[in-house]
Amino acid sequence: MKSKEAIRRLLKKKILILDGAMGTELQKRGMPGGVCPELWCLENPDIIADVHKAYGQAGADIVYSGTFGANRYKLAQYGSADQVLEVNRELARLARRAVGQKIRVAGDISSTGHFVEPFGDLPFEEAVAAFSEQIRGLAEGGVDLFVIETMMDIQEARAALLAVKETCPAFTIVTLTYENGGRTLNGTDPISALITLQSLGADAVGCNCSTGPEAMLAFIEAMKPYATVPLAAKPNAGLPRLEGEETFFDMDAATFAAHGPAFAAAGVNLLGGCCGTTPDHIRFLAETLRNAPPRPPVRTALSAVSSARSYRLLTRNQPLVVVGERLNPTGKKALQQELLAGKMSLVRQMTREQEQQQADLLDVNVGVPGIDEEKAIRDVLALLATATELPLVIDSAKVETIETALRLYPGRALINSISGEKEKCERLLPLAARYGAMFILLPLADGEVPETADRRIAIVREVYGKARRFGFSKEDIVVDGLVMTAATNAQAPAETLKTISWITNRFQAGAILGISNVSFGLPERNWLNASFLAMAQLSGLTMAIANPSMEELMAIKRAADVLTAKDAQAAAYIAHFAGRAGSQGPAAAPATPASTPQSPEEKL
Amino acid sequence: MKSKEAIRRLLKKKILILDGAMGTELQKRGMPGGVCPELWCLENPDIIADVHKAYGQAGADIVYSGTFGANRYKLAQYGSADQVLEVNRELARLARRAVGQKIRVAGDISSTGHFVEPFGDLPFEEAVAAFSEQIRGLAEGGVDLFVIETMMDIQEARAALLAVKETCPAFTIVTLTYENGGRTLNGTDPISALITLQSLGADAVGCNCSTGPEAMLAFIEAMKPYATVPLAAKPNAGLPRLEGEETFFDMDAATFAAHGPAFAAAGVNLLGGCCGTTPDHIRFLAETLRNAPPRPPVRTALSAVSSARSYRLLTRNQPLVVVGERLNPTGKKALQQELLAGKMSLVRQMTREQEQQQADLLDVNVGVPGIDEEKAIRDVLALLATATELPLVIDSAKVETIETALRLYPGRALINSISGEKEKCERLLPLAARYGAMFILLPLADGEVPETADRRIAIVREVYGKARRFGFSKEDIVVDGLVMTAATNAQAPAETLKTISWITNRFQAGAILGISNVSFGLPERNWLNASFLAMAQLSGLTMAIANPSMEELMAIKRAADVLTAKDAQAAAYIAHFAGRAGSQGPAAAPATPASTPQSPEEKL
Ligand SMILES: [Zn+2]
Ligand SMILES: [Zn+2]
Ligand SMILES: [Zn+2]
Repeated sequence: MKSKEAIRRLLKKKILILDGAMGTELQKRGMPGGVCPELWCLENPDIIADVHKAYGQAGADIVYSGTFGANRYKLAQYGSADQVLEVNRELARLARRAVGQKIRVAGDISSTGHFVEPFGDLPFEEAVAAFSEQIRGLAEGGVDLFVIETMMDIQEARAALLAVKETCPAFTIVTLTYENGGRTLNGTDPISALITLQSLGADAVGCNCSTGPEAMLAFIEAMKPYATVPLAAKPNAGLPRLEGEETFFDMDAATFAAHGPAFAAAGVNLLGGCCGTTPDHIRFLAETLRNAPPRPPVRTALSAVSSARSYRLLTRNQPLVVVGERLNPTGKKALQQELLAGKMSLVRQMTREQEQQQADLLDVNVGVPGIDEEKAIRDVLALLATATELPLVIDSAKVETIETALRLYPGRALINSISGEKEKCERLLPLAARYGAMFILLPLADGEVPETADRRIAIVREVYGKARRFGFSKEDIVVDGLVMTAATNAQAPAETLKTISWITNRFQAGAILGISNVSFGLPERNWLNASFLAMAQLSGLTMAIANPSMEELMAIKRAADVLTAKDAQAAAYIAHFAGRAGSQGPAAAPATPASTPQSPEEKL
Repeated sequence: MKSKEAIRRLLKKKILILDGAMGTELQKRGMPGGVCPELWCLENPDIIADVHKAYGQAGADIVYSGTFGANRYKLAQYGSADQVLEVNRELARLARRAVGQKIRVAGDISSTGHFVEPFGDLPFEEAVAAFSEQIRGLAEGGVDLFVIETMMDIQEARAALLAVKETCPAFTIVTLTYENGGRTLNGTDPISALITLQSLGADAVGCNCSTGPEAMLAFIEAMKPYATVPLAAKPNAGLPRLEGEETFFDMDAATFAAHGPAFAAAGVNLLGGCCGTTPDHIRFLAETLRNAPPRPPVRTALSAVSSARSYRLLTRNQPLVVVGERLNPTGKKALQQELLAGKMSLVRQMTREQEQQQADLLDVNVGVPGIDEEKAIRDVLALLATATELPLVIDSAKVETIETALRLYPGRALINSISGEKEKCERLLPLAARYGAMFILLPLADGEVPETADRRIAIVREVYGKARRFGFSKEDIVVDGLVMTAATNAQAPAETLKTISWITNRFQAGAILGISNVSFGLPERNWLNASFLAMAQLSGLTMAIANPSMEELMAIKRAADVLTAKDAQAAAYIAHFAGRAGSQGPAAAPATPASTPQSPEEKL
C-alpha cells in the first residue's frame, strides 16, 4: 500500500488521471446482462485485465479494482455473501497484475444497496462491518489506496470511510453521485458532503457518475473554495440516451477531453471518467492535461459544520450565527418527561419552531437525571436527521453521549463543549479529532470559573495548546467568552466583552456566548440579553447560543449584523423586514436586491 | 472698586465674614414702620453709619450697603423712582465712610418685587435696565463689589447678574432665599441655581434669609460638590417667632456662632447673618472662625445643565442621558403649522410626552421656513419655563435665535451645536461664553462632512483649541460623534463608534449622537437605532439625541446602562421594570432598593 504522503506529493505535481468506465467496457467484451459483474470477472480474468491494461496504457495514474459491488449485501444477491474477502482480494490482485507497480490500484468500494441508519434500515455499525470486510480483502489483494464511489447516501459514505480508518488506514478518495439538481438521492449537496467527509478524514473528495462534464464542473467549482483536500471527478460521457432498455452515452473522446482544462482551472486534482467513457476518452484527457498545473487545496482547515443536507460556515466575516438553545431539558419539565418516556413530539415542535425563527444551528442536549443518554441521543439524532436540515451542536456533560452522537451524526458536528477540566479534556480531544468535529472551547478549569478576561485567556491558550497536538487549528474551534450575571458583578459584562475582543481580534478564532446568563436574576431579561448581544457583536462575537423565539434579541442581532458591516448592503436585514411593518425611512432604500447571493470567496 | 483677583486671593486665605441684619438694627435705632428704609437712611445717615460701623468693628470683612430696595420699582412705591442713582450713590458713600478702606463695601441689590419674564410680568430687559441703573449708582458710590441677595426668582437674579456684567463687571455674590423645603418661592433648588449662576458669571453663590443655620447648612453641603465658585451663606438667627404683627428671631449670638465650624467644614467661603442677627452674632462668628481654614471650590468646571427647577449632570460615569428630539418641526407638518400660527398645543403635548417617556433633556428647535424664529423661540421658552422642569438644549441653525434663547433661558443651556464652520464658530463661541452655556461640538467643517474618525478628531481638536481661548474646558462641551447612514456606507457605524471611543477614552469629554440617522433609508429603523445605541454605549457614549417614545430604544438604553456598569446594582433598571411584565428570573433579584439615591460625590 502506498503511503498517503507519496500520493499527496504526486498530487502537488500533477492532476492525476483516473480510469474510465468498467461496466460498459466489460459489456463490449462480452459480459452478459444479469450476471454478477464481480463474479463474472473472476471467471473471466483476462477480460477485466484487458480493461485495466487499456486504461493504464491510455494514461491513467490510478485504476479502480473491479470490486464496485463486492460487498456482502450485493454479493448476497448472487448467493455469494460469504465470498467477500476472496472476491476483493482476487480482483485487487488481478488489477495489480494487469497494470504493474507504476500505476496505482484503488480498491473500489460502493454502495450496499441499502440506505444506512438514520436514513434507512441498515444499522450504521453493520454497514461499517460490511465495508471493513471488503476493505480487508482489498488490502490483502495489495491495493495502493481506496476509493469509495458512486455513493448516494452520505451516511453510507461515512460508514465506508470510518471502516477504512478503523480497518486499514490508507489514502481514500470519496466521491458521491449528484443528480443534475446538485443533490444526492437523499439530499446531500456537494459542499455539505465535502465538509463532512474531509473532516472525517477523506484524503480526496469529489463526485462521479449521473452527470456529464458540464454539470459536474459546477460541483467542483462550488466545492473548491471550501476544500482542504484534493478534489476528484469522474463525469459520464455526456447525457444518457435511452434506446429500448439500453442506455448509451454518446460524447466522443475528444469532446469529453476538451472539458479537461476547465476542470483543471476549477481546481480538480483527480480526473477520470464514468459511464460511457472508454480508454480513448482517458487517453485524450491525459494528453489534454499533460502540462496542466494542479491547483492544490487553498486551505488546510475550514470553520464550518454540516448536516446531511446543509452546511454553515462559521467564519468571522458574516452575520452572527445563532445556535438555537431550546432542545435542552434543563429547567423544562415537559421536555424532561417526554425524553424519559422516549416521546419526540416536543423535540419535533421545538425543532420546527427554531427553524422558523431562523436559528442557524441547533444545540441538542438530552441530559435528564435517570435517562439512558446514549439511547436518547440516538433517538433524537435519528429524528433530527429527517426533521431538520440545520447542522447540530452536540451538547452533553457525558463523554460517552458525545462519542455516540459524533459517530452517528451524518455531518460535521460542533461539540459543546471542551473545557480546561483535565480529565474530560484528555478524553474529548481525541474523540473530536477522530470524528473531525469542531468544538467550543470553554475557558473553565478544574474547580475554577475564572472571573477575569486575563485568566480566561490563559485557559484558552492552555487548552488550545493541547488541541494542536491532535491536529486542531483555530478554524476548528469556537471560543466561549463565558457570560456571568451582571446582577452579581457589575464588571462581569465588561470582562466577557474584553474576552470576546481578544478571541476575535488577537487570538483570531470564532467567539461564542450563551447570552442569556447575563440577565439572570433581573426583570425584563430580554432587553438585557439583546443589549448585551449588540455589544458582544461590536466586540467581535461570531456566534450566540440563544433562544431564537426572542424577537427583540433576533431583531437586535440582525441590526447589529448591518452595523458591524457583516450584512453587506443590509441585504439580509431588508429581506427579513421589508414588507413587515412599513419602513420608517424614505423610499430611497438601497436598490440592491435583498437576496443577492454571496460568492463562496466573498463568504470566506 | 476692588479687582476680582484681590477678593479671590483673600478667599483662598480665609473664610470671609459678612455682616448681619440691617433692618432689625435700624428698627432698634428708631426707624419707624412703613417708611422707605433707603430714604429714611439717607435722612438719618448717622444711624445707618452706626450699624455699618458696628458690623465692621464686630469683624465683618464685607458690609452690604443699605440699598436693598433701592431699585426703581421699590422706590416708586415711595414716589422716588427717579432717585435711583442718587440713593444708591449716597448710601454706598455712606457705607464707605462708615467702615473706611480696609473693610469692603458690597453694593446691595435685591428684588424689584416683581417676577420676571417668563415667570412674571416684568419684561426681562426692563429688569436688566432697572438693575443697571442701580448698579451705576452703586459704582459711582464706590462699592468694592456687588451682592445680589434675597432673590426668590432665579430669572430676576440672572437679570441682575447680567446687569452687573454689562454695566460694571466686578466681583459679584449672588444669594437666593430658599424655603425650608429647599426651593425658592418659584421653585428653584440650590444646586440648579448654583449651576445657572456660576456659569453665567457669578463670582460667589449661596443663600440667605428664610432659614436658620441648620437648614442652610444643608444647602451649602448640597452645593459644595458642584461649586466652581466660593459659597456664601447668611442664615437668620434661628426660626421666626411671631408676636402680634412682629417677628422675632431668638437665637443668641453664641448659639448662632456655634454653627460656624460646621459651615466651614461644609465649605462655606463667605459667612454672615440675616434676619435677627446683630453685631454680636457677627463678632462671635468671626471669633469662632478666626483660624478655620477655607475650603476653596473643588473644581474649576462642571459638566451640567440646569433649568429653573432642575439640573442634570452630564458627567461620564452615569446612565446615558437622553435628549428628547421631538420638539423640532423638521419633517413634521402639523408642528410646523402650529409654530407658524403661534399655537402651542403640540409643543405642550410633545413636552409632556417626552417627560413621561423619561427624556432627561429636551432639544428645542423652532426652525420653520418663513417663521420669525426669535419670536417663536421666546414664545416656546416662555411656555416651557412652566411646562417642564427638564433642562433645554437650544437647537438652531441661526446665531440670532441661539442668542435670544441663551439670554432668556432661566438656566444653563446646552447649545446644539457649534461646528468647525468658521464664521458661525467665531460668532457662537463668544456667545456661549457670555451666557455660560455648554455646547455640543459638531465635527463638521466648511463644506466638509468628514467620513473618517481621524478627520473628525482633527476638527474636534481645532474647535476645542478655539474654545479654550474663551475659557471653555472639556467639562463644558459634549462632542458629537457624527452619525452617518449605514445604508450608504457599511463602514459608517464603525467610524462613528471609533470617534465615540476616542472622545470619551482619549479626549475625555462627553460624547453625544443623534442616533436615528444611522438607520435612514432602511426598514424597521427602531432595531437599528437600538442596536447602534447599545454599541455606542459600550464605546463610551454619554448622551443620545433620540425619540424617547421608541420603547425598544429606551429599554435597550436602560439595559446598556446596567451592562456598562453605569446603573449601580441595576437599581434604575429594576425600578423601571419591576412590576411590569413579570421577571423572567428567579426571586433572587438584588436586594438593593431601587431608588437608592447617589450621594453627590458618587455622582461626580
Ligand atoms: Zn434495505
Ligand atoms: Zn457512472
Ligand atoms: Zn433675612
